[in-house]
Amino acid sequence: MAPKDAYKELEKRMKEVALLNSCESVLGWDERTHMPRGAANLRSEQLSLLSGMIHKKFTDPKVGELISELENSDFIKNTESSESANIRELRHDYDKLTKLPTELVEEISKTTTLAQGEWVIARKKSDFKHFQPWLEKVITLKQEVAKAYNFKGDLYNALLDDYEPGASTEEIVDVFTNLRKELVELLGKIKDAPKKPDVSIVERSYNVDLQRVFGESVAGAMGYSFNHGRLDVTTHPFCTGIGPGDTRITTRYNPNRLNDALFGIMHEAGHGLYEMGIDKENNFGMPMGSSTSLGIHESQSRMWENQVGRSRSFWVYFFPQAQRIFRDSLGDVKIDDFYAAINDVRPSYIRVEADEATYNLHILLRFELERALLSGDLKPADVAGEWNSRFKKYFGIEVDKDSNGCLQDVHWSAGLIGYFPTYTLGNLYSAQFFAQALKEMPDMMKQFEQGNLMNLRNWLKENIHIHGSKYRANTLVEKVTGKPLSYKPLVEYMNNKYREIYGF
Amino acid sequence: MAPKDAYKELEKRMKEVALLNSCESVLGWDERTHMPRGAANLRSEQLSLLSGMIHKKFTDPKVGELISELENSDFIKNTESSESANIRELRHDYDKLTKLPTELVEEISKTTTLAQGEWVIARKKSDFKHFQPWLEKVITLKQEVAKAYNFKGDLYNALLDDYEPGASTEEIVDVFTNLRKELVELLGKIKDAPKKPDVSIVERSYNVDLQRVFGESVAGAMGYSFNHGRLDVTTHPFCTGIGPGDTRITTRYNPNRLNDALFGIMHEAGHGLYEMGIDKENNFGMPMGSSTSLGIHESQSRMWENQVGRSRSFWVYFFPQAQRIFRDSLGDVKIDDFYAAINDVRPSYIRVEADEATYNLHILLRFELERALLSGDLKPADVAGEWNSRFKKYFGIEVDKDSNGCLQDVHWSAGLIGYFPTYTLGNLYSAQFFAQALKEMPDMMKQFEQGNLMNLRNWLKENIHIHGSKYRANTLVEKVTGKPLSYKPLVEYMNNKYREIYGF
Repeated sequence: MAPKDAYKELEKRMKEVALLNSCESVLGWDERTHMPRGAANLRSEQLSLLSGMIHKKFTDPKVGELISELENSDFIKNTESSESANIRELRHDYDKLTKLPTELVEEISKTTTLAQGEWVIARKKSDFKHFQPWLEKVITLKQEVAKAYNFKGDLYNALLDDYEPGASTEEIVDVFTNLRKELVELLGKIKDAPKKPDVSIVERSYNVDLQRVFGESVAGAMGYSFNHGRLDVTTHPFCTGIGPGDTRITTRYNPNRLNDALFGIMHEAGHGLYEMGIDKENNFGMPMGSSTSLGIHESQSRMWENQVGRSRSFWVYFFPQAQRIFRDSLGDVKIDDFYAAINDVRPSYIRVEADEATYNLHILLRFELERALLSGDLKPADVAGEWNSRFKKYFGIEVDKDSNGCLQDVHWSAGLIGYFPTYTLGNLYSAQFFAQALKEMPDMMKQFEQGNLMNLRNWLKENIHIHGSKYRANTLVEKVTGKPLSYKPLVEYMNNKYREIYGF
Repeated sequence: MAPKDAYKELEKRMKEVALLNSCESVLGWDERTHMPRGAANLRSEQLSLLSGMIHKKFTDPKVGELISELENSDFIKNTESSESANIRELRHDYDKLTKLPTELVEEISKTTTLAQGEWVIARKKSDFKHFQPWLEKVITLKQEVAKAYNFKGDLYNALLDDYEPGASTEEIVDVFTNLRKELVELLGKIKDAPKKPDVSIVERSYNVDLQRVFGESVAGAMGYSFNHGRLDVTTHPFCTGIGPGDTRITTRYNPNRLNDALFGIMHEAGHGLYEMGIDKENNFGMPMGSSTSLGIHESQSRMWENQVGRSRSFWVYFFPQAQRIFRDSLGDVKIDDFYAAINDVRPSYIRVEADEATYNLHILLRFELERALLSGDLKPADVAGEWNSRFKKYFGIEVDKDSNGCLQDVHWSAGLIGYFPTYTLGNLYSAQFFAQALKEMPDMMKQFEQGNLMNLRNWLKENIHIHGSKYRANTLVEKVTGKPLSYKPLVEYMNNKYREIYGF
């Protein structure tokens, strides 16, 4: 087969995989938004049939042959071309999916299903001992996986690569350690600061329908298209990029707290803009038609949620609107008090409820522990003790019970080792990208004050979204900002913001 | 292979077909309820991939072999068994799907896609001449289809069989002719009747949210389970039986008319109860796990909409509720005036807006014309003239333009010849079943007066739903009522009701 025809054949096969994936996404979205409870069994049978078909189509030996053929052809001579990137990433995914022994994959699937059930019980009883044997099993299996992948360097690399392809533990560990030190220092300053935000402002009565209207108008101003997406309600908010022309987001409303849905919508719409900005029309099924890593995805959501949504400039334009919409709750509030309230920093036990400043400390703690677990430096039996002592050191408070400590997250029971760091990578990328955007568009904050968010959106699309998976995350950061990943932009951004708000 | 194993293998294959079908149903439901407009292209690619897979799996030669093997085994010795019925119906469907030459199937698909576009234009211009060449093409192709199927008797039988398996034109044509005569006579009496309902009662202001609450409470009283279904809003209401545990309905609300959503919900919930009443848990994928015909399906929706929903007994219980919910619009209304208003009969051009009495006349007119078209007795060029002259004869009014006449329905342009009669078959079955239920439960109308609809629901489930496709429609009617299909129960029911309301 001529390389050109091999490439076409590969595209055709990947397009079918992508279409089946997109069907699965519609079913997954429906399951979490609208599906009647009684349909749960049917839904799991539908999804399992589709997953099986997708796996079979993608791991078809013919796919492997086509990739090999193209790797040995002139077709990838230009290493900067989209075709090269597509073949590089397909090779990566194909190898990962075909390298593990079937028995290991099945063993993991069985174990993590059971482990999640036991984790629910353990968390309810707040008893780490109950979960410990399951954590041991999961860690042992993930060690086997990492060994089977046989990556260079740290064993953790192979797991991290599932979510952040190409990232290396060695590269990020320094950045993370520096970030931790800076954050602990910042928390100390905030604790002793003379000013304290009055958070009761955002905990007044906020009509849910009006929250939706306001949230949708903000998402619209960000450039999120409701002709190619929609907003629904779920317990656990998410964004799903179903395929070309279909990217949906969800949120949850608290009638007595403005923040949850508002920043939640901005967060998910940020993910949505990434999905909408990728050129899926021309690359559906190929890596150029999908996002490059979870960390880059998270950088987009966090930028809109924090760098934009928690900036004073944004509220210069949107606060008067919010005041008109929520007259009874915000009519008498000053913008600076509101701005302080949405930027309140307060150490707390639970990661998913954490503020912008403490959030990364939660992640870094988990990263340190799971890395030590994988290398064998930390025994599962010692996880609760180690968690609590580090928590005290980083946050300055004592963990009162395991359910507020090492049992709070589902990730480890589900076998998601290597996932946590992508949250903090996202925050780091986000600050680094935002600083670069500001450098290239010095009046950007002024634009925000006039409600103009589109220049940022377009900048993100041109510099990040449109590339799909062309560049690995670390390459992309260097391409866009001219520098490798650094903790400094995030620390600088936070110090500036909190210095102003807390007056330290 | 032992027959038992062949049967198991067949069940396994059909289950996969059913699961893919159910995925298609979820996507179809989503498309009509929530899908962003921009996803239209993606959705048509998804659906076309799934359709192709379903067709390939079902028409796999191995499926034909398995059916043949079972037909030649003791496995179907007991012709009354579920297994026999399953094999009978699978043979029927397999043959229909494999008998047509691929070129003919493709030609029909292409032609009807174009014809539907031209029909839209013709209807807009109200110009039958524009549509005529397309009708000619469609009729010629459908004649070829009918010949290829090679059914006994009337050519029309093969087409009717697509929607009402096993029905014969010869059997229904007498029933339909008698029904037409009776309906024309009834219309004459209603026209000259001394009393006229005051329909303005149901055309007051009816808050849409309250319509939904009331409609859902009625559907709940009918036994429609919101744990296994849901109600959404669409332009064209429908019911979709996605699979075990998942049967969804839709409606549309008119804030200035109570009838549309109310009787629409009862209609769709009637379809829904049929889907929910079939034993899909144990028969998913096999004919015993699906409905037996469109006519029987329609009998369930029409029974709940008309025999129940438009009965006085039903409103003895529900009218006081409606009065409390719609206090401003119904507070001062007497139940008999309301009852008359929801049973208003008034000849009009458009089928989908027709009342219970004139509806069947619309259908009979279409049935007569399409049968004559297929046999060649009527030339497509003469359709408009023939339509208008029959309309005048049956309805007593002149058709003013083609868009109010022979251009109003999409069916013919879509190649749906043989579909229309199932509507009237549904109404006939419905009356015949309902008369039988009344005979077996003489106090049923009294039960309605107390809001108890569950005995009827259970009777329908035990006598009709649970059988899935075990019996063809005509057999089922005889099994349940002891008599073949007849026009008399419907005519008697209508005459009794309208005599009381119109005082003729």
